[in-house]
Parts: sequence; structure tokens; C-alpha cells
Amino acid sequence: MTDMLSPGATIGILGGGQLGRMLSVAASRLGFKTHIFEPGANPPAGQVADRVTTAGYEDAEALKAFAAAVDVITYEFENIPTSALDLLESQKPIRPGREALRISQDRLTEKTFLQDLGLQTAPFADITDQASLDAALAEIGAPSILKTRRFGYDGKGQARIKAPEHAAEALAAMAGAPSILEGFVNFSHEVSVIAARGVSGEIACFDPGENVHRDGILHTTTVPAKLSTGQRMDAVLMAGKILNALDYVGVLGVELFVTPQGLIVNEIAPRVHNSGHWTQNGCTVDQFEQHIRAVAGWPLGDGQRHSDVVMENLIDDDIDRIPELAREANCALHLYGKAEAKPGRKMAHVNRVVKPQE
Amino acid sequence: MTDMLSPGATIGILGGGQLGRMLSVAASRLGFKTHIFEPGANPPAGQVADRVTTAGYEDAEALKAFAAAVDVITYEFENIPTSALDLLESQKPIRPGREALRISQDRLTEKTFLQDLGLQTAPFADITDQASLDAALAEIGAPSILKTRRFGYDGKGQARIKAPEHAAEALAAMAGAPSILEGFVNFSHEVSVIAARGVSGEIACFDPGENVHRDGILHTTTVPAKLSTGQRMDAVLMAGKILNALDYVGVLGVELFVTPQGLIVNEIAPRVHNSGHWTQNGCTVDQFEQHIRAVAGWPLGDGQRHSDVVMENLIDDDIDRIPELAREANCALHLYGKAEAKPGRKMAHVNRVVKPQE
Repeated sequence: MTDMLSPGATIGILGGGQLGRMLSVAASRLGFKTHIFEPGANPPAGQVADRVTTAGYEDAEALKAFAAAVDVITYEFENIPTSALDLLESQKPIRPGREALRISQDRLTEKTFLQDLGLQTAPFADITDQASLDAALAEIGAPSILKTRRFGYDGKGQARIKAPEHAAEALAAMAGAPSILEGFVNFSHEVSVIAARGVSGEIACFDPGENVHRDGILHTTTVPAKLSTGQRMDAVLMAGKILNALDYVGVLGVELFVTPQGLIVNEIAPRVHNSGHWTQNGCTVDQFEQHIRAVAGWPLGDGQRHSDVVMENLIDDDIDRIPELAREANCALHLYGKAEAKPGRKMAHVNRVVKPQE
Repeated sequence: MTDMLSPGATIGILGGGQLGRMLSVAASRLGFKTHIFEPGANPPAGQVADRVTTAGYEDAEALKAFAAAVDVITYEFENIPTSALDLLESQKPIRPGREALRISQDRLTEKTFLQDLGLQTAPFADITDQASLDAALAEIGAPSILKTRRFGYDGKGQARIKAPEHAAEALAAMAGAPSILEGFVNFSHEVSVIAARGVSGEIACFDPGENVHRDGILHTTTVPAKLSTGQRMDAVLMAGKILNALDYVGVLGVELFVTPQGLIVNEIAPRVHNSGHWTQNGCTVDQFEQHIRAVAGWPLGDGQRHSDVVMENLIDDDIDRIPELAREANCALHLYGKAEAKPGRKMAHVNRVVKPQE
């Protein structure tokens, strides 16, 4: 515990969206100040942070001043340019560390890493051109899905290949970006584990949540998920394996497909995760505070759940339902302070506390 | 619901201490920005607010600019100078309204108001000089307690009178301030009700909490309190009577003594209250969000409690216990971001979630 950051210290957060916002709020509960670094003006996180730097990731002076003003650096998204990370890391600790970012920034690296750990993934192949795509399709088959190796989220940078004759069209949609072909997995449902590892190596997991997507974006997460005791244990052990292999510090999201052949890792996210928002109203220490505790070198919460929860994302004009949702009993509102609704934009979420645990 | 303030609007908060801080965090969950007005530099609330004005209550220009920048004004403490309120009220709505402030700023006015409502209070008398004190002591008896009518909190501005011969000394301690003599009430314990009233007159109360004080400062609040079903109902009805009489909008704290002769009102506070901090980890909508909902014209949460909670205040160097408390399961930490611990200063509180409700 020698490494425990004192209250009053400042946590630097790269990214000023809703995750940074909720991290800021959690940090305040532990007596920390936060400083947001975000290229876009008036970020949602800035409304609840002590300081905001509005600058791009190529602005070395701004990055240096930011690093000088904070005690530890964390982030709300994984696609931070390497040059910025190099500069920041030379001045202050970045948690979670570089290895987690290196692996999760690239789908091919990530899947290879998972396979090397002995974890199941969807079948995949490195795609560099039409020939490699044809070869991969011959092995993996269709339907399958072509994805850019980097910078994909919420269904962006992806093209489904229903049959081999659609391969050229899908490849064109990648616009020359290095890609990966993934085989479809025949799964009954998707769950995710929000897991955390502290500076001294201790691990705590939240109960797995069951995810339902709509138009490629997370729609609901329900806890408890439909899982057997064995599956629940497997999910937690898999998350633990990943955390240890990465010497990870912070919260990690692990998405898993539930299949008759066991749990298959879909992807990992080295940060707090949308599918962990339910913890805000289901646990005494939520995923945001858990992440701050980890990066600050504090003891972790134990992940215990006191209530059943259904989290629902409010996308775009779903936000117009707020007056009605505000009247609903046991419905916790979490708005992100975004000025403008847009198609696909996450504006808020609600946590419906379904029934207390006994 | 026509009066419902839209997300993105700004709530002005007078006072930048821990209550303003936790109000800011709650406001962020509903998509509101907050703007703190506080004479002291670097207030705790400023770390989680969108804007801070550092200026005194006599600074008319600063008050005007603040009022112009916000959509509604609320406060974390009741002793706001009348001139500042006059100026602010001419520009933006202040919630809770002036009547609640007028009454709660003065112990004599408050006790008279409560008595006029048919509620029981401790015996009391207006004290202006030695003669009125002698007459009051003859009627109310000793031991009793002399208090300044205004600006008292956490045991400040009070002097106990153990026997009539100590009257002169107690009066001298008031330093000429208008005062009130209160008789001692023989009570078994103290409870408080955190009650809320919305713009359209609806009322919601949290479950009463049982308070234990130490050195004149709240030490713990425990829910559920030791109360019969009848007492619990009485407490809620009394709070409702007060809210309606004041045409109140917001959260109000009502402290009650439990006696064989029924519940006796100790005092009311027209704001979120230390004895309501347990709601942060016991309810889906806590007292801070309830207050913001009320002043923003939103529907209120229903006050339902999902867990038993013991809240403990951390005063002064109690803050050194944080590393140990952080290791405790089911113990939620709430630090206030204050730079320096001092005798009697509230630095943080913890909510121990004791057991879930069935």
C-alpha cells in the first residue's frame, strides 16, 4: 500500500466523453481531482472535472503541461496515438500500461494474444489483400465478417460477408486498411465480465452481465446473466488470466460469447466498459470507482452485487424519453451532458434496479 | 411538468462545501451543469462543478453575473445574507424559497412556526437581556440551553445552563446576540426525516435515520431507526406538514426527538442534510439527486430504500483511517476534497451497507 495515491492528488484522464465523466465523478468520491485531456471543445467530462486541457494528441507542449499537472494518467478509450503515449509515459505513470493498449488497439494482435493464453476466440485470419481474403474465406467460410485491425468500435469499420462473392465489396469497404477476417460464432448470448486488477496484483470481478445489441450498439445489459455456476466461474478465471498476462492495473471489459463448446472471447477493452454501467446502482463500489482505486494504488472493492439491474442505453432521440423515465420508480438516470443528439450517439443510460438480492 | 428544466441547463449553487459538491455530482447525473458561488477560494464543490464564482455575498456585480449565467438557484446552507437573496431573487428563481430561509435562519421564528403548525417543540423563550433570561429560567427551569437565534450550527453559539446561577455567564457567551432559551427534552434518541417536495406539490420522504452525536457534531446515522410503525408514520406526516406550510421546493431535513410523549421537532434545515448522506448507498435516487430533481421541476424519486446503512462522519484526523476503511467490504467512501484537516472539520463520510432489504 506504499504506492497509495493520497486524496487531493490529481488523476489525468485522456478523453472527455461519458466514460471520462463518470470516472471524474468516481474520483471525486475518493477525494481526487481530475484533469481531462480532450481535443474536442466542451467535453462532457469537463463539466465535472477540476481542469480541462483542450488540445490535440500531436500537441507536445500541451501533453507535457498536462503530464506535469497530474499524478497518474489513465484513459477512457484505447486508440491513443503512440507518440502521445511515448511522451506522457516519459513523465508520469500510465495505467493501465502500454502492453494492454498495444494489444487491444489491434484486433489481430489481440486475438493472437488470447489464443496464446489458451483462450477460445472466433476463427480469424490476417487480411492484406484479395488473395489472403480468398484463402481465409476458403478456410473460415462465410458468413463471416471483415474488420479493420485498428480504430473500430460500435460496429464501425466492419463489413459482413454473407457469401464468398461479396468478398471484393467488403475488402473495398476497408479502404486499404489492414484487416482481419473473423468467422461467425454460433452463440446463444453474449456476456461480459468487468474485471479489475490492483497495483499489487489483487483481482476483483463484477458479476457477468448479459448484453443485447441493437444496430451494432449495446442496447441492454442484464445482471444476473443466464449462466451456469461453471460458466460464471470460467468467465471470471478467463478474465483473471488476461489481467495477469498483461500485468494489468485498472478495469478491463471482456466480452464473451456463450456457446455449447464453452465461452469464446469476443474482444477485450482496456478501460471501463458500457456493459459495466449497471454497477453504479448494483454495487457499493462501481466500475468507475474500481478503476480509480486501481490506478491510484488503492485496495479494490470486492465486486459484490446488492441488486439485480437492467442497464439500457439511450441513443440519439431516446433522450426524449427522460421525462417519462424520471417518473419510473427504481430507475436511475445517468445523462452525459452532451449538447446535441445524433444518430448512434450515446446520450445517457438508465439502470433499472429490478429486485434486491437476499 | 411544463416547468421541467431541460438537461444542459445550469443550476446555480450558493456555497461550495461538501453539500454543494455532492449536489453538483447529482446534477451531473441528470445532465445539468452547475455553477458554484462561494466566497472562499478553491471550494470542494468547485472540483466537480462546471463553473465557480469566487466572490463575497456583498459583491452585487458578481451576484448579478452569477444569476445571469444560471437557470435556477439553490443553496447548501441557510445563512445567506438577505441583501444577496433580494438581488438574486429579482433575476432567477431561488428554490427552496425565501419563506423557508426566513424561518430557518432564526431559531425563535422557527420554533414559533412549528408550534403554530401544532407540532411539539422543546419549551422555549425569547431572550433579550438578563431579566428575560431570569424569567424564562423560572418557567423553563435548568438544565436548559441558551442559543443565539441566528448563525448557529454544529453546536456553535450555544451555552448550557446547568443551574440558574450560571445564567449570567451563559448570557455573556452570546456576546449580545439575540438569543433563545430552550428547555431540555428528555428523549430516548434522535431521528431525522429527509423529506422532499416538488414544484407541483408532490412529497416523498426517505426512511427516518437514527442520529448519534459526538462533541455536538453528527457522528453516525443508522437506517432503519428504532421507531414503531406509528412513530415512523408520524415522522413522515410531520415533515409533510412543514413542507406544505412553507410551499417548499427541494429537500428539507427535520430532526426529531423520540420521547414517550411523541416526536418533538428539534430543528429543520432547508437543504440536504448530513443525516441524509446514507441515501447515497441505500436508495436509487439519493437526497442530492432528489433535491436537484425538485429544484429543476422534475418528478421526485419515491424514497424507497434498498439496503440498511450506517453512515459515519470522518472529522479532522479521522481522515487518516481512509486506507483502512478502503479495505473494508461494503464500505462506500465519500471524501470532500478538502485540502486541510482541522478540529471539528468534516472531511468525509462512509456509508456501510449493512444488509440488503428483502
